Amino acid sequence: MNQISFRRARETDLPAIIALLADDELGRQREDTSHPLADCYKSAFKALDADPNQFLAVVTEDEVVVGTLQLSFIPGLSRKGAWRGQIEAVRIAADRRGGGLGRQMFEWAIAECRARGCNLVQLTTDRDRLDAHRFYEQLGFSASHIGYKLAL
Amino acid sequence: MNQISFRRARETDLPAIIALLADDELGRQREDTSHPLADCYKSAFKALDADPNQFLAVVTEDEVVVGTLQLSFIPGLSRKGAWRGQIEAVRIAADRRGGGLGRQMFEWAIAECRARGCNLVQLTTDRDRLDAHRFYEQLGFSASHIGYKLAL
Repeated sequence: MNQISFRRARETDLPAIIALLADDELGRQREDTSHPLADCYKSAFKALDADPNQFLAVVTEDEVVVGTLQLSFIPGLSRKGAWRGQIEAVRIAADRRGGGLGRQMFEWAIAECRARGCNLVQLTTDRDRLDAHRFYEQLGFSASHIGYKLAL
Repeated sequence: MNQISFRRARETDLPAIIALLADDELGRQREDTSHPLADCYKSAFKALDADPNQFLAVVTEDEVVVGTLQLSFIPGLSRKGAWRGQIEAVRIAADRRGGGLGRQMFEWAIAECRARGCNLVQLTTDRDRLDAHRFYEQLGFSASHIGYKLAL
């Protein structure tokens, strides 16, 4: 594996990120990869970028975006006012999967949460993704909760 | 049940909210109900109150706080730039449980998420809380995900 680096996403990364989001069974139905980029993504990027508690990250290898994830830092009163780090929208380019990049991304994300003073990192994953479950358990996560979703 | 109302929490509500958070098996070990209120809660409240994407709510009955919940509005690129509403830290006063207040709180929370333009509402709950699972399913939530947590 070549040297990879992590950085905050820029508006010019949007086509690459949307292509990653669209590159799976569910994403293909949900996302809009038309050019020029749909306005909905530009507005969403503005909201992400303006919010200091959101960190939309890209992973690059030789300047090419090969992965993305979103960190949300969530303040709260519970657990003596602990901050939580939440990881969502993790995607890796198809030709980079299975080579340890996912582990590097999560180790980076957990370190970022620690650096921001979070006491807890949380994420949800589809209950049928058994490979993902093993992966998170190897990283030290505990499958203690059920994740409920309600589409509006 | 008397008339209840929902509003944004104020700093003066903190002792009542912390008392609610501490009033269960896990919370008793995790929270600090000493007086004067521990500084960790005041800092956490400031972070919550300063963030327009956090809505710490209290439910009052005759001006008395009988419940609390936290809404987080999370921007993202997935699903064509959809916003998610996330519900955490839901607590109801012991003497108000079982009377339909929980349902009213969730209906209010879901309506707030809708009003903020969210396309999805999400929450996690401990996998052993079978009563809670039935409750969320009755509200229309789908138990599609596993919730992973990592304490730092």
